This record gives sequence, structure tokens and C-alpha cells, in this order.
Amino acid sequence: MDKNMTAAVLTSFGGPEALQVRDDVSIPNLQKGQVLVQVTAASVNNTDIWTREGAYGQPGQPNAKAGWRGQVDFPRVQGADIVGRICAVGDGVDQRRLGERVLVDPAIYDYSGDNAHPVGLLGSELDGGFAQYVAVEDVRAHNVTTSPLNDEQLACLPTAYGTAMGMLERAEIVKGDTIVVTGASGGVGFALVQLASIRGARVIGMTTSAKGDLVAEAGADVIVNRKESNLLTEMSIAAPSGLDAVADVVGGESFEWLLPLLKEGERWVIAGAVGGPVVTFDLRRLYLHNKQLIGSSMHTPLHFRKLIDEANAGRVLPRVAETFTLNDIHKAQQVFQGRRHVGKIVILPSEV
Amino acid sequence: MDKNMTAAVLTSFGGPEALQVRDDVSIPNLQKGQVLVQVTAASVNNTDIWTREGAYGQPGQPNAKAGWRGQVDFPRVQGADIVGRICAVGDGVDQRRLGERVLVDPAIYDYSGDNAHPVGLLGSELDGGFAQYVAVEDVRAHNVTTSPLNDEQLACLPTAYGTAMGMLERAEIVKGDTIVVTGASGGVGFALVQLASIRGARVIGMTTSAKGDLVAEAGADVIVNRKESNLLTEMSIAAPSGLDAVADVVGGESFEWLLPLLKEGERWVIAGAVGGPVVTFDLRRLYLHNKQLIGSSMHTPLHFRKLIDEANAGRVLPRVAETFTLNDIHKAQQVFQGRRHVGKIVILPSEV
Repeated sequence: MDKNMTAAVLTSFGGPEALQVRDDVSIPNLQKGQVLVQVTAASVNNTDIWTREGAYGQPGQPNAKAGWRGQVDFPRVQGADIVGRICAVGDGVDQRRLGERVLVDPAIYDYSGDNAHPVGLLGSELDGGFAQYVAVEDVRAHNVTTSPLNDEQLACLPTAYGTAMGMLERAEIVKGDTIVVTGASGGVGFALVQLASIRGARVIGMTTSAKGDLVAEAGADVIVNRKESNLLTEMSIAAPSGLDAVADVVGGESFEWLLPLLKEGERWVIAGAVGGPVVTFDLRRLYLHNKQLIGSSMHTPLHFRKLIDEANAGRVLPRVAETFTLNDIHKAQQVFQGRRHVGKIVILPSEV
Repeated sequence: MDKNMTAAVLTSFGGPEALQVRDDVSIPNLQKGQVLVQVTAASVNNTDIWTREGAYGQPGQPNAKAGWRGQVDFPRVQGADIVGRICAVGDGVDQRRLGERVLVDPAIYDYSGDNAHPVGLLGSELDGGFAQYVAVEDVRAHNVTTSPLNDEQLACLPTAYGTAMGMLERAEIVKGDTIVVTGASGGVGFALVQLASIRGARVIGMTTSAKGDLVAEAGADVIVNRKESNLLTEMSIAAPSGLDAVADVVGGESFEWLLPLLKEGERWVIAGAVGGPVVTFDLRRLYLHNKQLIGSSMHTPLHFRKLIDEANAGRVLPRVAETFTLNDIHKAQQVFQGRRHVGKIVILPSEV
């Protein structure tokens, strides 16, 4: 095996130029308990771009350059969503895992337990999967040999579907709930539509008219065009007796007009804020009606195992919008940020 | 019995002049299932003043004049917290209740069930207790004959302790939790300190230095002076491993500096915003750490029954700061708004 590999390395916070595709990156040495994964597919997420830009802000300084946990150690191989084959195992790992197709849990947890919190992420706090190879802890590499999904489809799951699963679990979305999904055509939004629909919720997807058909196909019962001039009226027609939940990845001004449509005591779960993270918020609109704003970041170990079960049973069908080679990662991120696609953009670092 | 009574009647949204003490108000006619309560004590709350001012705003119009549920029908007898004696019973009510000492549940619920939501309030959506008499539904008048507390003390309970109980229950505060109570000397804050301490939580009370001793006496383990120049440092010393919960009635800027001190996945429960209801809020500080913002308005029927149990067992000890006659209600509200007191201001409409 070569000693070097190709990888997309983040060298500092900055524009696309801060992310450099290099072919002289050392293949990681395996530590005890680790496996080396040859990466066949790795999908693109907002978090890659926000980490590159340092766009997470800090307490009291919304415009400070920071990764989602604060500092980032450069150089850092980016990429959270990793599918591949185990091509080497470290000490203490079962040799029979060699050759196994695996989906990697990208979350670094604060303790080992079903309900642990994610406090780090592959591609941000540890090197990730925009590379031909990545070394990860044995337990992090889940066996997906029996899944009917192909590698590209599986690579769509960890961040987008993991985040969506976390939101639905934390907000306890159940059959019969009427739920609005904002940004329903994006990675997390599309996953939310699919997973909420599988649970038997009545899903109202907010998206543009051009993407409405695909979102409906994913399971949305009603599509509301987010560019509609009178969104409040449209939404009131779509949910005449109010909303049981909002699953939000947009934030921004939707917060002000949509919150009053939640029924008494109901749930707004939020996992992102592409429409603007800093909002002006009238606390009375929340507390006078016993509403809850549930922050949701990624997933717990339990949520991730549920996702692996869905993948192995073939109950989820991620949509791959377009694939790119690792050398074309900048083009891939451009397409991603153009937001004309529905589903996920996937990088294919190596073939097996 | 006379046909008329003295009552404090709100005639419109406005200043103190909008609340008029009149002695020609008709004693309410009893409907089926109601009891007539001769009011011996009724405490003063922020909600009386905010309702008088119309200070609740509306969705998208934070400065619109409105009661907490929107419109208020004038004239309206104010006063949510009612203690008194049953002096007449309507059709269908057990005659043996005559003479019973009762504490009235001021919440109007959206359905009958243990976990119903409060969607109305005596003194706002129905006539309240700043009057010599009030007619209320039989089930609303809880028997407190056996409580060791006197009428003035019992009158402190419904809104302040009911709201505090609702907050602690909704945020699931348990033994060992480290919890900050903002505004710890106010009505709800003082009740929070007492009830959280009874549960075995470690309570950090934020108040001014002049009020610190009384708040500590109520059960706070640590007092943090809210006028301290470096509050963040003070709080970090008080809770070196972070906070399990914040029980907030202040809102305003505390929201920005205090939220980061909550541990991953923990709870901010809010029931008021005396420090400013409209805040600038960076949604990332919530969602990246799986934190929850739990709106809490008053109590459920189950929470109120728990409170009645505490009162009858004498496990709570409300602090009466000062009492006033009904004719002096404007003076009472002035003292209340001066915020130099600790505990509750109580009106004594009639003697029995």
C-alpha cells in the first residue's frame, strides 16, 4: 500500500481556497482499537462549509470565526459522512472485519451511553472522510453489508438523516402529528420528510415550487411554497387546527410568523439556521403558550443505531442529486451552495 | 346580604387610573355548579399590572396593547389569587361546602384532564378576586381548611407558587440538579427557590445584595448579586461544572450570557420576562448544544393539586411582605412595582 493519499485538507478558516486537495497526505497510522477505512463515498454537508468559513460564532460574538465547538486544529481533513471498506485493523480489533462494508458514526460523544451528547465531529474535531482513507475507532464503523442501499446512498445518511432522526426523537414526533418541515428539499429537510412520514406524521413541506414534486414524493402530504407572498394564510389553510410540531433547519424570520401556529404546549425543534442564526425573539410568544424550543444537534448513539437499522432494512431511500470525484470537491460545494438540487451531493474518493 | 360590593374594576388598557375601585358593583349571581366566595385575601401579581397596561404584545407586534390571551372584555374585576370562605352555593353544589375555607385555582383550562393547558385566568378572562365576592366553579375552589397557613399566606400561592411548580415540573427538576433562579426575590422567584430547595436541588439565587439574606433563608445555597460587574465570572465560581437548569422570570440580556453556562442537553425554563421580552437570540447557542428553551405559563390541574397538597401539609411558607385594604390597591401596586420587598403583597378585600 502507498504511504500517501489524496485528501481535502482545511488549512485555516476562509473561502474555498482554504480547503486544499493534496496528494501527499500520509495515510493515517492505526492506533489500538481502530480500523482503516478505504472511503468509497462521502457526502457534502452545510457543516463542512460552515466549519471552513468558521461560521458558527461564539457566545456573545455571533460573527467570531469558530468551528461548531469553538477552535479547530489545522490542518484538518474535512468530511463527516463516510462509507467504505475496512482495509486494515489495529490491535484488539477482530480480523474478520477486514473487507466489511461500513457506515461510520461521525459523532464524538461526551460519554459512552445510549443518550450521550455529540460534542465533536469527524472532519471537524478529528480527521474525516474527504480522503481516500480514514482511521476510526472500531465501534464507530457500523456494518452495513446487508443494506440494499449502494455506497453513494449510504453516504447520505450520517449527518442529514442522523440529524433528522435526532430531531424527531428529541421532539417525540409520533403518528398523527401535523409537522412542518422548513427547508424540506435540503439534506436534513428531505430526510425529515422521509423519516416523519415513515412514522405516520402528517408532513407539511416548505420548499420552492420547482422542488415540490420531489419533496411530495419523499412523503410530504402538503407542499407550501416558501416564496408565497402570504405564507401565514397558506399555512393556516394547510393546518386549519394548528401545528403539533415544527422541524426547523432555517431559523431566520420564519420563527416569528410560524411560532404562533403551533398549538398550546407544542414543540419547535431546531437543528440549523441557514436563513439566519441571530433572530429577534419575543419570549412571550413562547412562554405564554407553554411552547418548547428544542435545540437538536446531530444524534445520540441510540438514534444512530436506529438509523443503521433503517438502512439495513432498506426503509429509507436517500436521494443522490449528483456525484463528484475528490478532485472536484470545490465544484461539488459550489453546486451544493447553489441549492438547485434536491437531496445530497456525494464525493467519491476511491473505488474498490 | 347586600346587592352591591366593592371591587377593583379594569375599565380599559391604561395607567393606574384605568383600574377603578367602585362600591356599586353587583355581587355576582350564582350559576349552576358555582360557589360564591367571600374574598378574605388576594395577592398582587405582575400579570394584574401587565393586563392593566395591555403589556403582552401580539404576534409580530410586540408593542400592541393586549392581554395575555389577546383581547380583554372590559369592565373586568382583576385579581387572580383568591382565598376566602364559601358563603353561598349554586344548584348542584354540596350544601356542606358552606363556610369552607377555599383556595381558588385561577387557571381556565383548554380541556378537563390532568395535563390541560391554561388558556385563561381569573381577573383576565373572567372576573377575579380584587372584590369582596367572586363566583367561581365549584371544582375550582379547593378546600384548605386544614392548612396551617393563614389566609394571607395562602393567597400568595396560586399564581406565584403555581407558576413556580409548573416550571419545576415541566423542566423535570430533581434532587441534585444545580439550578439558577433569576429574579429570586420576586413572587415567582422566591417560590422557585423554596420549591426547588424542597426537591433537593442546589439553588443559586440571583438577586440584589439587600435581599440576599431572605432568599438564602428561603433555601438558596448560593446568592449571586445580579448587579455584580462580572456576573459571568461570579456564576462560573458558583457552578464550576456548569448548570443543569435555569428557571427564568427575567428574560432580557441574562439570556445571552447565562445560556452558555448550561451543560449540554440541559434546560432553560421561562415563565416571564420582567427584564425585557424581546431578545436578540443566536439560535446556534441553543441547537449546537442540544439545549431546550421550555416556555412555561402557569400550571396544569395536576400541578395545582400538588400545590394544594404542599399547602395543606404546611411544607411551603410564603412570605407576606405587606398587606393593604382593597381601597388602597393603587398604593399596593406602587409598592409592588417599587420592587423593594421580598415575597408577596396581599390585598384584604373583606373580613370574616
